[in-house]
Amino acid sequence: MLPLEELEKRIGYTFKNKKYLKRAVTHRSFSSEHNERLEFLGDSVLGCVIGYALFQKEDHFNEGSLSRVRANLVKMQTLAEIGEKIGVWEFLCVGEGEMHQGGNRRPSTMSDAVEAIFGAIFIDGGFEQAQTVIIRLYEPMLSQLTAATLGKDAKTMLQEVLQSKHLGLPSYEVVDVKGAAHEQEFVVEAVISKLGVVTTGVGRSRRQAEQEAAQKALTTEAIKNL
Amino acid sequence: MLPLEELEKRIGYTFKNKKYLKRAVTHRSFSSEHNERLEFLGDSVLGCVIGYALFQKEDHFNEGSLSRVRANLVKMQTLAEIGEKIGVWEFLCVGEGEMHQGGNRRPSTMSDAVEAIFGAIFIDGGFEQAQTVIIRLYEPMLSQLTAATLGKDAKTMLQEVLQSKHLGLPSYEVVDVKGAAHEQEFVVEAVISKLGVVTTGVGRSRRQAEQEAAQKALTTEAIKNL
Repeated sequence: MLPLEELEKRIGYTFKNKKYLKRAVTHRSFSSEHNERLEFLGDSVLGCVIGYALFQKEDHFNEGSLSRVRANLVKMQTLAEIGEKIGVWEFLCVGEGEMHQGGNRRPSTMSDAVEAIFGAIFIDGGFEQAQTVIIRLYEPMLSQLTAATLGKDAKTMLQEVLQSKHLGLPSYEVVDVKGAAHEQEFVVEAVISKLGVVTTGVGRSRRQAEQEAAQKALTTEAIKNL
Repeated sequence: MLPLEELEKRIGYTFKNKKYLKRAVTHRSFSSEHNERLEFLGDSVLGCVIGYALFQKEDHFNEGSLSRVRANLVKMQTLAEIGEKIGVWEFLCVGEGEMHQGGNRRPSTMSDAVEAIFGAIFIDGGFEQAQTVIIRLYEPMLSQLTAATLGKDAKTMLQEVLQSKHLGLPSYEVVDVKGAAHEQEFVVEAVISKLGVVTTGVGRSRRQAEQEAAQKALTTEAIKNL
């Protein structure tokens, strides 16, 4: 296990009281002084910080969209990705049995530890410190909400973006079908004429190819800069 | 409708920017500048404030209990009670049709407005100001968690309290049964011998009478001060 100072560097926060961080990375299989209550607290803090960030940034979102996106950003998988990125598993104290089964790198365990770390920062440094760390770690996800985060498919999302700017609807056209009857591959072009954007998607069904084309359109500069 | 200064007095917070409060009390039936996004934000803030309060106060609660109690404290009914207490309905801007149907005093509408007010304070004054107001309004509920808030029946709760202090189990005894066969009324005594506490409950069934006796025991000084 790496020293906790290294973890402090990776999250960009130095604890006044190191025992909070120690506890945040302690799994219940390791000690009765484990991180589950801190995880509860961190979950509360995270919901507030992400809720406020979305409220500020996405001023065109209604309450339903805000709730849906927040839920996607605070769910286990997203937290586990953050845990993987900061390598939280390298610091986790888990019981020997758990460790042998690779339990320190289990997504749910990493997710719990990341939440517990947020809770620990909140206790140690207050709301604004926790907010700073959370926003920094979530920055890539907040600055570009993906179709998955938004809980929408790419075609719906593209349509909404274009409509909000009065740019009409994209058109989709099958430009090629390859392969034998049961192994067909569809090639679809998405055209957003008012922006001069044309993207191509490939898939085993027309629908799949359209989704890919829409996803590619969403990542073009012309649309990202709308 | 009463002036918003009166609402500020009742919640104990004066807004720097009154437009936030105005918006927090505006229902969607009244104007497109309604409170739904603020309600989302307030919900986020409330979860964090109540989560932290429970984390601090109930240091014997595990994560599951903390989550359950938080859910009970932030649910619509609880918020509507707070709305009723501060008379939030006297300030709500709802559409005419709604108003005629008493829509300003509907529990869900009051609950939404109370959350929106918390969100408005957060934007106007920051986390600590919102925390102060929320804790003040929730104080009665936080200082004495009831069986309902805890999502447990009174007997279970009494048993848990006594066991945590190694005071053994309470005993319940039917001391009287009154009335004719189909209208019986049971009188039950709960005895906690180590504390010298005896309480009496009455009910249409033995179980109901036991619950009442347990609930009364929970409110005795001897047990509240454990």
